[in-house]
Amino acid sequence: MAFPSQVSIVEVGPRDGLQNEKEIVSAEDKVTLINMLSDTGLERIEAGSFVSPKWVPQMADSGNVFKGIDRNPAIHYSALTPNLKGLEAALEAGVDEVAVFGAASESFSQKNINCSITESLQRFEPVIALAKEHDIPVRGYVSCVMGCPYEGDIAPRAVADVSKTLLDMGCYEISLGDTIGIGTPGATKRLLDEVLKHIPVSVTAAHFHDTYGQALVNLYTALEYGVATVDAAVSGLGGCPYAKGASGNVATEDVVYMLNGMGISSGVDMEQLLRTSRFVEGLLNRPPVSKVATALLGK
Amino acid sequence: MAFPSQVSIVEVGPRDGLQNEKEIVSAEDKVTLINMLSDTGLERIEAGSFVSPKWVPQMADSGNVFKGIDRNPAIHYSALTPNLKGLEAALEAGVDEVAVFGAASESFSQKNINCSITESLQRFEPVIALAKEHDIPVRGYVSCVMGCPYEGDIAPRAVADVSKTLLDMGCYEISLGDTIGIGTPGATKRLLDEVLKHIPVSVTAAHFHDTYGQALVNLYTALEYGVATVDAAVSGLGGCPYAKGASGNVATEDVVYMLNGMGISSGVDMEQLLRTSRFVEGLLNRPPVSKVATALLGK
Repeated sequence: MAFPSQVSIVEVGPRDGLQNEKEIVSAEDKVTLINMLSDTGLERIEAGSFVSPKWVPQMADSGNVFKGIDRNPAIHYSALTPNLKGLEAALEAGVDEVAVFGAASESFSQKNINCSITESLQRFEPVIALAKEHDIPVRGYVSCVMGCPYEGDIAPRAVADVSKTLLDMGCYEISLGDTIGIGTPGATKRLLDEVLKHIPVSVTAAHFHDTYGQALVNLYTALEYGVATVDAAVSGLGGCPYAKGASGNVATEDVVYMLNGMGISSGVDMEQLLRTSRFVEGLLNRPPVSKVATALLGK
Repeated sequence: MAFPSQVSIVEVGPRDGLQNEKEIVSAEDKVTLINMLSDTGLERIEAGSFVSPKWVPQMADSGNVFKGIDRNPAIHYSALTPNLKGLEAALEAGVDEVAVFGAASESFSQKNINCSITESLQRFEPVIALAKEHDIPVRGYVSCVMGCPYEGDIAPRAVADVSKTLLDMGCYEISLGDTIGIGTPGATKRLLDEVLKHIPVSVTAAHFHDTYGQALVNLYTALEYGVATVDAAVSGLGGCPYAKGASGNVATEDVVYMLNGMGISSGVDMEQLLRTSRFVEGLLNRPPVSKVATALLGK
């Protein structure tokens, strides 16, 4: 086990973050947010989702957002595309990368998208095929990797199976999502001990929510396994410090602070990241969830 | 490096926590708090401080608190005693254990207690001697072990020197305090690589504040070194979720949750701990800083 010398952070605040905020943020503000993030040194930004506005009204303007942002050619701007219609709109908007998602929990898959895990994966086949035709890389998300709100514990083997299937279907990377932020370092180890038997660590990303305050220590555990791609959201977007049980992404600021202290390079400039935290603070009219942002902006 | 199979948690909420809260809590409420904590399975509770009320008004009633609590003979109730007068009052109140403290930073020592580190340690000699006469064990705190608000970085060797001196003077345990919560896993490793050359891991405790959200991952790092005594405060007492730069202790709930998930026993019952979090919530009229308490009480 050796820590990676470099970690690539995938900024998911504009998508996974804002999608889970009550406040609807305008396309204009999203564009400002993404442009500010583009100046931090981040190389991957999940900028939107092409999904039915009926289900996710917060993401209805993703086409306009993609058109509005200043595209930095060094950055990959990605979007979630659950179906062909979404992918076509994403291609039209000029995305650099798309993502599909499978659950590791049957109950979660049924309750969330009304079909089994196997059926959901089959639906992605044409999406992945069309993306490949356009030379657009496809990321695969797996949700509920450390537990499910309906089933409780999830067997690491179930996560490994979905991960392997998504990889075999053509995804270039698998992002393991602790959707409800319930994991611990023990669960993270049990998960990676199994999953890394089936997929290479080089294509494995960690996507941990901080519901139980464990995201950072779980990431540290994943880094010990050599995982070198980490999803995070500026200001801990997606969670609210006041709401009971709020389930935000781990804050990018907190991840960068930890990596800096460990001598692991992420290429992200903390000062510009904090300017972005300040912008988000104004946008949502509340203090950041990130403790690093709270501490450093308070100085 | 092997994780300990058991970890002893020292609950410091009633002292280090409440001392840093703006709200003055009545002796009656402190007694209730400590009695509730006594029912969680915790075996060590820092219940007060015998120090000039001019400097620390929040702790002026420690004598009454000690008299008021239901003493569980299985639990060690301790107090901070910076000088002979404090120790005498503590002995009068029937404490099981006392603590003295030295800084690893000269500037911090000068600004906080108006003397050099060496002078501060000399002042503890008669305190430790009298405690020993009464068979009262003395704990030594070292503050600023990962950084100082005035000096910035602190050399691990300086921490090691103060730690070794306190141990040689008769302290039975050294609690390493990241007073301003600035450490990372990298800093924790550099610290322990040096300190554990000079004092045994079996007498070393970790006392980490969560100002930068790193307390839990730093504790995990310390556990990897075999550290098996951890200071924590119920509900993350000592920090405020609204205040910029608030510097609370790591929350006992979050530590217990992590340890449970790692299969490390602490003997602490989460349900009773959460009842205590709820009590603290009412006491301070604000949500807990602990994410575990927020998530589980919100269910």
